[in-house]
Amino acid sequence: LASKLPAVGTTVFTRMSQLAAQHGAVNLGQGFPDFPCDPKLVDMVTDAMRAGFNQYPMMTGAPVLRNAIAAKIGALYGHAYDADSEITVTAGATQALTTAILCCVHPGDEVIIIEPAYDSYLPTVELAGGVPVLVQMEVGPEGYRVPWQRIAAAVTPKTRLLVINTPHNPTGTVLRQADIEALSAIVQGTDILILADEVYEHMVYDGQRHESMSRHPLLAARSFVVSSFGKTYHVTGWKVGYVAAPAALMAEFRKVHQYNVFTTNTPMQHGIAAYMADAAPYLELPAFYQKKRDLFRAGLAGSRFELLPADGTYFQCVRYGAISPLPEAAFAEWLTTEIKVAAIPVAAFYQGGTESGIVRFCFAKQDDTLRLALDRLARV
Amino acid sequence: LASKLPAVGTTVFTRMSQLAAQHGAVNLGQGFPDFPCDPKLVDMVTDAMRAGFNQYPMMTGAPVLRNAIAAKIGALYGHAYDADSEITVTAGATQALTTAILCCVHPGDEVIIIEPAYDSYLPTVELAGGVPVLVQMEVGPEGYRVPWQRIAAAVTPKTRLLVINTPHNPTGTVLRQADIEALSAIVQGTDILILADEVYEHMVYDGQRHESMSRHPLLAARSFVVSSFGKTYHVTGWKVGYVAAPAALMAEFRKVHQYNVFTTNTPMQHGIAAYMADAAPYLELPAFYQKKRDLFRAGLAGSRFELLPADGTYFQCVRYGAISPLPEAAFAEWLTTEIKVAAIPVAAFYQGGTESGIVRFCFAKQDDTLRLALDRLARV
Ligand SMILES: CSCCC(=O)C(=O)O
Ligand SMILES: CSCCC(=O)C(=O)O
Repeated sequence: LASKLPAVGTTVFTRMSQLAAQHGAVNLGQGFPDFPCDPKLVDMVTDAMRAGFNQYPMMTGAPVLRNAIAAKIGALYGHAYDADSEITVTAGATQALTTAILCCVHPGDEVIIIEPAYDSYLPTVELAGGVPVLVQMEVGPEGYRVPWQRIAAAVTPKTRLLVINTPHNPTGTVLRQADIEALSAIVQGTDILILADEVYEHMVYDGQRHESMSRHPLLAARSFVVSSFGKTYHVTGWKVGYVAAPAALMAEFRKVHQYNVFTTNTPMQHGIAAYMADAAPYLELPAFYQKKRDLFRAGLAGSRFELLPADGTYFQCVRYGAISPLPEAAFAEWLTTEIKVAAIPVAAFYQGGTESGIVRFCFAKQDDTLRLALDRLARV
Repeated sequence: LASKLPAVGTTVFTRMSQLAAQHGAVNLGQGFPDFPCDPKLVDMVTDAMRAGFNQYPMMTGAPVLRNAIAAKIGALYGHAYDADSEITVTAGATQALTTAILCCVHPGDEVIIIEPAYDSYLPTVELAGGVPVLVQMEVGPEGYRVPWQRIAAAVTPKTRLLVINTPHNPTGTVLRQADIEALSAIVQGTDILILADEVYEHMVYDGQRHESMSRHPLLAARSFVVSSFGKTYHVTGWKVGYVAAPAALMAEFRKVHQYNVFTTNTPMQHGIAAYMADAAPYLELPAFYQKKRDLFRAGLAGSRFELLPADGTYFQCVRYGAISPLPEAAFAEWLTTEIKVAAIPVAAFYQGGTESGIVRFCFAKQDDTLRLALDRLARV
C-alpha cells in the first residue's frame, strides 16, 4: 500500500507522552491538564445520559449547544453568528481543522502555514492535494512574531487559505491589533480564506485581549473560527469542539463533516450546554492559568533556561543553549529520561525540523506538579 | 468558494428525521433505537468520568478497549488481531470508513461500490480524488443479491479498493459462504483492498452466521473491518466505533486518523470496555431484533406493501407499487406527512437516484412504537 503521507510518523505528543510514562517523568509535554474538571460538568453529562440523550444528535450539533456557542461568541467578541447555519459542533478541534481544510482546498491550491505550526495542518493540506507554503515566524529577544511582510510576499493567485493560530501553540504569541491590521491588508480584495485555530482563546494574560477573527468583520466574513471545549473545560479527552463560519463557508464545511464523522457525541454536547447555561468558567481562566504561568516562570528565573515571553496558551518556551549543545529532540529526550521532566522540541513544529534551541513546557498542571518539575529542572 | 462536493446536499437521514419531527410522524427512517441503553453502561461511563478518565487517551484508543475488541473478534470470528498494532478506536463507524478511504485511495484510483450503498462511501472517494465505479445489486423476488460476475468485470488495473457492507444497509442482505468464495476469487492475486462495513454484525437472523472478513484469512489480510458500538449497544449518539486491519494497513490508517480526529472520547471508551468485560449483550441481539423484525413483518403481512427478505440489519425494505405510482422520495414524504410514518427512499442509496419502488423502514424501535406505526400503515 503506497502511503498517502509517507513523511508522517507518530505525533511528537504521543511519543513524548509514552517516553514520559516509561521513565516516570513529570509530563510537561503534551498539552493537557493533570487536574480534574468541575464535578458539576460530569454530573451534567450523567444527567444527559440518564435523560436518554444517547442517540444521534443533529448532524450540525445539538441546537442547545449551538445556541450557547453563538451566545458566547456574541457576548465575548460581538459577532452574531446564526446558530443554525453558522455554527457546527465537531469531534474536537482537530476534526474541525481537518474538515475545514478538506472542504476548501482543491488539488494545487496553496495554503500558507506559519511555522512553528501545530502538526496537523500540513499533512492535512497534503491529503487534500494542496500545496503548503511555509513562512517562519521571527524569533528575537522579545520572542516570536509573525512576519507579515513575508506572508504578503508568499501570496500568489493560487493562495486559497491562510492558517492563523492565536494564541499560538507552541510559542504563546498572541496577535495584537497591529497584526490584525496587517492580516486584513493582506487578504482584503483577495478571495483568500482564513482558518483560525483559536483553541486557547481563553488563555491570554496580563490583561491583553484575544483578537478572535470573529471580532473583525472583514476577517470574520472569510474565516473558519475553531475552538475546543477540551481546552476550556479541562476535558481534552471528551473531544468536543466547534467551528463558526459564514453560512456559505459553513455549507461546504458541513458537506464534508457529515461524511467525515456525521456528528458528535450527544451526552457530552448536552452536558456542556447545561454547564454553559449555569456558569461561564472561561471568564476565570486567564487568572487561573496566569498564576500557573507565573509560578512556573518564577521557578525557572534563576536557572540557566532562558524564558521566552508567554502571552497566551498554557505553554512556556525556553532556550536551553546555555545548558546543552544537543539538538532539540535529543535534549527533550534527555530531559525526559535523565531529569524526569518531559518537554516538546519546538523543531517538531517545523516541516524541515528547523532547530532553534528551544523546547516547550506545558504548565496546565497542578501547582504541586509544577513544583516537582521545577525541583528537577533546578538540577540542570 | 468552489465546492469540493457540488452534488452533495443534506443527508436523507437528516432530512427525513426533520420532516418526521415537523409532522409528528413515527420515525422509522434514520437508523437508531427509540429505547434506552442498559443503565449499567451509563453508570460505567459515569464511573470513568468520576475516576478522572477525561484527558486524551492514546491516539489509537484506550488499551483496555482495544484489548476487549481484539478478544471479541477472536472469540466470534477466530482471527487474532494484535490489539496494539491492528485495532484503532474511532469516532464512530463513519469516521473509520472515511479515514480508511482517505488513507488508501490515491487520485485516479478506482473504488468499486455496490449499490444501493450507504451514502458516505461515494463522496468520500471523490474527496480523496478517487473514481467511484458503481455496480448495482440485482433485485428479484427473493430480494437483493450481489452480482459477483459484474463486479469481476468492473475490476481494472486501477482498482484499489472494494467496499463491502454485510449485513447490508439498506437491503438487509447478508453475505453467505458462496459470496465469500466469489469475493475471494475476485481479489486473490490482485492488490485490491477491502473496506468492510460490518456495523450490523450482531443483527443476523434465522440462525445464519455473519461472514465477517475477519473469519477468512485471505480476505482479512487485505481488509479494513469496521464496526460500531453505537449500533451494538443502542447508543448511536456516543460515536464510538473501531477498525481492525493488518498492521501494515493500520499504520497508514493511523497516519490519517491522528490528523483527522487525533483520538476518541475517553470516558465512553472506558465505560464500553468495562461493559464488555461484564457482559456480552451482543450475543442476545439476534434474538432481540429478530422478534422486532417478525412483529413488524407480521403487521405488514396483510397490507399492500410487499415485504422483501430481511436477513440482517434492523431495516425492512418494502415494495409499494401496489399502493402508489409515486417516485420513492415523494412516496416517503407522503408516508411521513400524511400517514405519519417516516421511511427512507432506497433511491437515496443510488448515485443516480435509481428508482425501484422500494422504501426502507427501521424496526429498531419499542414494540409499542412499531405497533403504532403498523396501525397507521394499515390505513394505506
Ligand atoms: C492532540 S495532542 C496535542 C495536544 C496539544 O495541543 C499540544 O500538546 O500541542
Ligand atoms: C449516520 S445517520 C444514518 C444512520 C444509518 O445508518 C441509517 O439510517 O442508514
